[in-house]
Amino acid sequence: MSGEDAPAQQQNAVDQKQETKPTEEPKTEPPKTESPPAAAAEAAATPAATTEKVPEEETFTYRALVLTGYGGYDKVKLQVKKGKPTLKAGEVLVRVKACGLNFADLMARQGLYDRLPSPPVTPGMECSGVVEAVGEEVTDRKVGDKVMVLNRFGLWQEVAVVPANHTFLIPEGMSFEEAAALPVNYITAYMMLFDFGNLRPNQSVLVHAAAGGVGIAATQLCKTVKDVTVFGTASASKHETITQGGVTHAIDYRTKDYVEEVRKISPKGMDIILDPLGGSDTHKAYNLLKPMGKLITYGAANMLAGQKKNLLAVAKNWYHQFSIHTLSLIQGNKSVCGFHLGYLDGETELITEAMNTILDFYKDGKIKPRIDSTWHLEQVGDAMRKMQERNNIGKVILTTEPMPEEEKKEETKKEDKKEDKKKEDKKKDDKKKDDAKKDDKKDDKKDDKKDDKKKEEPKKEEKKEEEKKEEPKKEEK
Amino acid sequence: MSGEDAPAQQQNAVDQKQETKPTEEPKTEPPKTESPPAAAAEAAATPAATTEKVPEEETFTYRALVLTGYGGYDKVKLQVKKGKPTLKAGEVLVRVKACGLNFADLMARQGLYDRLPSPPVTPGMECSGVVEAVGEEVTDRKVGDKVMVLNRFGLWQEVAVVPANHTFLIPEGMSFEEAAALPVNYITAYMMLFDFGNLRPNQSVLVHAAAGGVGIAATQLCKTVKDVTVFGTASASKHETITQGGVTHAIDYRTKDYVEEVRKISPKGMDIILDPLGGSDTHKAYNLLKPMGKLITYGAANMLAGQKKNLLAVAKNWYHQFSIHTLSLIQGNKSVCGFHLGYLDGETELITEAMNTILDFYKDGKIKPRIDSTWHLEQVGDAMRKMQERNNIGKVILTTEPMPEEEKKEETKKEDKKEDKKKEDKKKDDKKKDDAKKDDKKDDKKDDKKDDKKKEEPKKEEKKEEEKKEEPKKEEK
Repeated sequence: MSGEDAPAQQQNAVDQKQETKPTEEPKTEPPKTESPPAAAAEAAATPAATTEKVPEEETFTYRALVLTGYGGYDKVKLQVKKGKPTLKAGEVLVRVKACGLNFADLMARQGLYDRLPSPPVTPGMECSGVVEAVGEEVTDRKVGDKVMVLNRFGLWQEVAVVPANHTFLIPEGMSFEEAAALPVNYITAYMMLFDFGNLRPNQSVLVHAAAGGVGIAATQLCKTVKDVTVFGTASASKHETITQGGVTHAIDYRTKDYVEEVRKISPKGMDIILDPLGGSDTHKAYNLLKPMGKLITYGAANMLAGQKKNLLAVAKNWYHQFSIHTLSLIQGNKSVCGFHLGYLDGETELITEAMNTILDFYKDGKIKPRIDSTWHLEQVGDAMRKMQERNNIGKVILTTEPMPEEEKKEETKKEDKKEDKKKEDKKKDDKKKDDAKKDDKKDDKKDDKKDDKKKEEPKKEEKKEEEKKEEPKKEEK
Repeated sequence: MSGEDAPAQQQNAVDQKQETKPTEEPKTEPPKTESPPAAAAEAAATPAATTEKVPEEETFTYRALVLTGYGGYDKVKLQVKKGKPTLKAGEVLVRVKACGLNFADLMARQGLYDRLPSPPVTPGMECSGVVEAVGEEVTDRKVGDKVMVLNRFGLWQEVAVVPANHTFLIPEGMSFEEAAALPVNYITAYMMLFDFGNLRPNQSVLVHAAAGGVGIAATQLCKTVKDVTVFGTASASKHETITQGGVTHAIDYRTKDYVEEVRKISPKGMDIILDPLGGSDTHKAYNLLKPMGKLITYGAANMLAGQKKNLLAVAKNWYHQFSIHTLSLIQGNKSVCGFHLGYLDGETELITEAMNTILDFYKDGKIKPRIDSTWHLEQVGDAMRKMQERNNIGKVILTTEPMPEEEKKEETKKEDKKEDKKKEDKKKDDKKKDDAKKDDKKDDKKDDKKDDKKKEEPKKEEKKEEEKKEEPKKEEK
């Protein structure tokens, strides 16, 4: 249960970090009551904190993950940036504690997500952290605020500058990992189920990838409505966990035809279907809708086959892409919706409204992000692999917490090698070794899990091996 | 304001009719408290009323409108049927008082609606009336109940047999015309706005044909939600009425580009668009949606050009038919829904739920069906024409009330002619004369209205004349 252990461990790390800067926080903390905007803006603009940091600005460095080009897991590299970012009006500077991984990040790495600017660029749509500086005109955030952040990109780094209205205060008792796990998955699930889906009591919902981040969020949100039946697809080893989490009928999509399984239990079909898969699965979903049913498609996970862009998978997905005529919709009394939070970044009001409801659910104990695993920035490749190969149950998180000294030495070597771009071939050989080492480490830590996985997913394991063999070959060209 | 006058006039007629059968009602009227299903079924099955009617069954006749073939307005003919219909378990026999006209009826007449069986068949999806007999196993309806009825077809006649769960009790104070005007338009508007549309406070809604039956229902239902802005399209002469009815911004689609008009007022677009038009208007609607916006298409009125099937219009509508890829939906965060009550006839539970809410709105004075005009069964052609040419404001109603003696003589002549199928050519010439006469009558009654119409719709008037000229030619073939 690494997901359960991780937050506690991480919380300690976070506390340590906060202890290193106790002098900053009291100075600029305004009273919690709401002050008039003008006065508050003036207070926020007072350079009390920033004045102290002037010398720091010259020596200011921070680590950042950078997508250096489209491709495999190793295209996201850890770099050190210099110089403190400047703040524009309305912005805040956040000291990042934890970051969430999303499917869009995986798509982006393969060049399949057009909301990320061209490389080199820092990915990352969500993170949690502490406000370290506020720009002019920021009235509702202050230095020391613990916040979660939602942004189009750029959050996988130790320091991030974002518009203040892209931040949300972390409620009491929520860890930084939970806060980093919440925004994308819960807002996505919430808006799909409650805005497009209009979920009501007694309805039935099909949740694909029910053990993934959105899947777990959707399941929890379904349970906030009376007598909702959740059909969830996941591989068999995850069934116990998702059933405990609220899935009524867990379906192993790897060994069974999920359409048949759903029909067996609910012959009329589903009221709502959340479809992250795309391609032919969207067609299946459409046919599986009840009258007045809503199909909400929010991704094209079927496009992701292998760690690099798989042109065949992309073409197949395009070829099978669902296209619907209005006459069919009318005769079926059906709704087809598309959702992607990444394309909704101008809609601050809608997002804030959704987030407020979600945070109320959290405070009432109705939802709780489930962390699958937490990885150091240096391990981002492995973190992405875990998610892409669907080995996670819940959210995959990156932490900015420094690696333990022992591991750090290994990573430092790697960092040095990265700087030395002329010795690229050598580096890659070493990297291969490092990867192998890391795999060993993971094996030590997660022996039980790995065994389970081997039993159920022998093909995937084989594929993984094949990829490893292929990778260096391609890169040697 | 013929729409306002009609119900009172009709109510009198209804009262008279009820007075003619006072002996039946008290005998089979069970107490209003809910009796156990078995006992009630027994009571309902007691042949007290039907026993008395045994002699009637032999002589039982009733008038029915029959679609005799696909084509123009004259394809719907008034016929006299003989023999009392028998009731199966779960059915009730309704003495029909008033019937609603719907766009689907117009499509059906042209052979463009597949939910109506092939001619000869009685059209009609909604009516109001009084329960005259109940079949076995009917526990919640009794003889004498005033009901409104929703059915796939077959309600444009004096006597209709329908499943009891297709009937809804008419609330206190609602006239038979109002009751006949309510089911299709209000359930359609309700399910589009509140199920697919998920209408919430402060949202904006574009209602096409805002002076039509669904348009007026939708406008009233929008006003049950706080601060909803309604954009309504209608020809200029109807603007005052629809504005009084709740439309915030009335747009004359005949003289202005409605897309431009909407953008001027609401640059970001609409939260919900109800689209009865189809074809290229569906494309416009899609582009006019805000992020998280819902386009609900519920017809293809653009296909109706002229009183007979216009193959060019049908082809054009097909050619321009909206087809949407999921990727576009995802990137736009949009929803496209199709609705048609005619294809929802198995969903008794959903419909009953919607109807109960609608009736609560009625009882609270929040909605009130607006009757445009009421026509005798003999005038069904004119009634259809009024609706198809968009000259109505509100609902076009048929009444089963007998025509005044004077008019009846004219109609009787026509009826006789219909029986005599061999003299078809002569009949059609006469009919042409009759039509002309009726037009004269209408001119007397609705001089002001007609004048208005002439000013705004000179083209349509011309077209009408052209159609009249064309019709007999074609039929002579």
